[in-house]
Amino acid sequence: SKSDGQQPPPPVVHYYMSNLTASADPVANRETVLILTPLARFYPEYWENLLHLTYPHELISLGFIIPKGKEGNAAFQQLQVAVSKTQSKSSKKRFASVTILRQDTESPLPNQSESERHKMENQKARRAAMSKARNSLLFTTLGPTTSWVLWLDSDIVESPKTLIQDLASHNKPIIVPNCFQRYRDPQTNTPAVRPYDFNSWVDSPTAQQLAAKMGKDDILLEGYSSMATYRSLMAYMVDENGGDTNKEVELDGVGGTALLVKADVHRDGAMFPPFAFYHLIETEGFARMAKRLGWTSWGLPNYFVYHYNE
Amino acid sequence: SKSDGQQPPPPVVHYYMSNLTASADPVANRETVLILTPLARFYPEYWENLLHLTYPHELISLGFIIPKGKEGNAAFQQLQVAVSKTQSKSSKKRFASVTILRQDTESPLPNQSESERHKMENQKARRAAMSKARNSLLFTTLGPTTSWVLWLDSDIVESPKTLIQDLASHNKPIIVPNCFQRYRDPQTNTPAVRPYDFNSWVDSPTAQQLAAKMGKDDILLEGYSSMATYRSLMAYMVDENGGDTNKEVELDGVGGTALLVKADVHRDGAMFPPFAFYHLIETEGFARMAKRLGWTSWGLPNYFVYHYNE
Ligand SMILES: Nc1nc2c(ncn2[C@@H]2O[C@H](COP(=O)(O)OP(=O)(O)O)[C@@H](O)[C@H]2O)c(=O)[nH]1
Ligand SMILES: Nc1nc2c(ncn2[C@@H]2O[C@H](COP(=O)(O)OP(=O)(O)O)[C@@H](O)[C@H]2O)c(=O)[nH]1
Ligand SMILES: [Mn+2]
Ligand SMILES: [Mn+2]
Repeated sequence: SKSDGQQPPPPVVHYYMSNLTASADPVANRETVLILTPLARFYPEYWENLLHLTYPHELISLGFIIPKGKEGNAAFQQLQVAVSKTQSKSSKKRFASVTILRQDTESPLPNQSESERHKMENQKARRAAMSKARNSLLFTTLGPTTSWVLWLDSDIVESPKTLIQDLASHNKPIIVPNCFQRYRDPQTNTPAVRPYDFNSWVDSPTAQQLAAKMGKDDILLEGYSSMATYRSLMAYMVDENGGDTNKEVELDGVGGTALLVKADVHRDGAMFPPFAFYHLIETEGFARMAKRLGWTSWGLPNYFVYHYNE
Repeated sequence: SKSDGQQPPPPVVHYYMSNLTASADPVANRETVLILTPLARFYPEYWENLLHLTYPHELISLGFIIPKGKEGNAAFQQLQVAVSKTQSKSSKKRFASVTILRQDTESPLPNQSESERHKMENQKARRAAMSKARNSLLFTTLGPTTSWVLWLDSDIVESPKTLIQDLASHNKPIIVPNCFQRYRDPQTNTPAVRPYDFNSWVDSPTAQQLAAKMGKDDILLEGYSSMATYRSLMAYMVDENGGDTNKEVELDGVGGTALLVKADVHRDGAMFPPFAFYHLIETEGFARMAKRLGWTSWGLPNYFVYHYNE
């Protein structure tokens, strides 16, 4: 029925992949975007930002995957309240569709604090589990008419209203903004910002040499002083005094807190390796796999989203 | 509307992955099966076999991906005629849904004869293209309610009516029948059978040693005398006088002419690598990747499907 804003799918459908564009002007070309969020904790600011997106909501579908267990249950409840309100018939903000997957597995480190999550010895299991969650969500929700996939973590509490248009305007297969975090500088007691996500980087000879000496299932991690990679991190490529928000940098690894991907990159087979892939895992492994398939990753060092601060 | 046999998807849907089973008795458990076929040529016998499947058709969805170009156009036309008839309202054989994807790329070797397709120097490009076609089809059609994926090539002209139940009854993550070919023995001028698909095998030390000496983008191929791998091929594990059709063999590589996969294997991220993955590609690389994710492949040496003979 039309009353709920969706047409019933006919029993036979033909799709011409050549008609499916992913262009610099996705609004004009009426390109559909699938926003995918692995969600262990729900942040109201994240939802507010979704609602404020100026990209036509009827072209946006949302997909969530939520772990089993207490933390997941709480997140699910909060999400449901938000979704019911937004998707109500009277709502002007409603999206084309919302899919919520409940995993049959718990988070490998439930009730994890930021410091616990980021302990080096926890990374491999944690990021393997994250990879599988991302893959399940992706394989299950990507449809024949999806042009773009926007990966967006639930703890991104500040992002521009024009995020989709801004990222898509670069017309890159894979593009990632810089992910920072607001905090209060204890010295000056004034608001400040600092880098949060270190997974967007340009590779280095040191990292390559480290990798060459590793066991085949070992992974390189970024942002740990005990494993100095000397990669060029996008986190440190910010130009003083704002700089050009359109400045592009070619990357070898990408983070996934906010990440726009042309759906065809995924369709070729690029997923989030839950195992060591060229000694990389999850979103960094994804960039490597996409590269292996001929797709290049790009970053915007002066264009920001902000991660929640615990 | 209900008249076309499909319910409109509600704008918000929740799926509990723990409720989605893939069991030894999929009919009793009402498990949905997605049959996926990369289709460059249409064979009426293939379609007849689909129609004769005793698995409840309302639990089966079909997905096709067809290359661009003359050969693809002809296949598309034949498929459309068959689909229209089968999916008509009066048809008792209709399936839950049919999705047809037209690629925006041509087959890398159009109008390929069996001998041309199987030339060793053509394998890497051809199987990389096949991998991408399989991945596109998989990523685009796998849904949140899919329990099983049956990969079935369009040139499998003979297969049991109970194919799905028979394969699923083994309750394996990945299971492959033996793919043979009928021919007329020129010596005796009587009907005979011979192995067709050599991609289902148990690994060998020789193959491992060959792989260890290869360049990192090189692939091992099976069934070429110039590259003797000494792997144990399922094609040669057939027991005399029929044997036990339920006999199971654990495999390291699988072929994809007919291949039943629990959807969760794909959801974890297992796809068809279009690049050298542990020196393997396409369906053989898929088995390796699934293994990397903890899923084992199995073969049924005495259970047969038959490939077209040009
Ligand atoms: N489905 C699922 N989502 C998770 C899990 N763990 C974390 N998340 C979500 O995945 C995203 C990234 O995880 P997070 O712990 O914030 O990673 P970090 O910021 O890199 O430390 C966030 O949106 C989390 O809410 C999990 O086990 N399953
Ligand atoms: N979509 C798509 N399907 C193809 C292409 N080439 C072959 N196919 C189909 O993929 C399956 C396997 O290909 P085929 O050439 O029969 O492989 P072989 O039997 O191993 O030589 C068959 O169902 C073909 O109809 C292609 O380029 N694109
Ligand atoms: Mn986070
Ligand atoms: Mn064939």
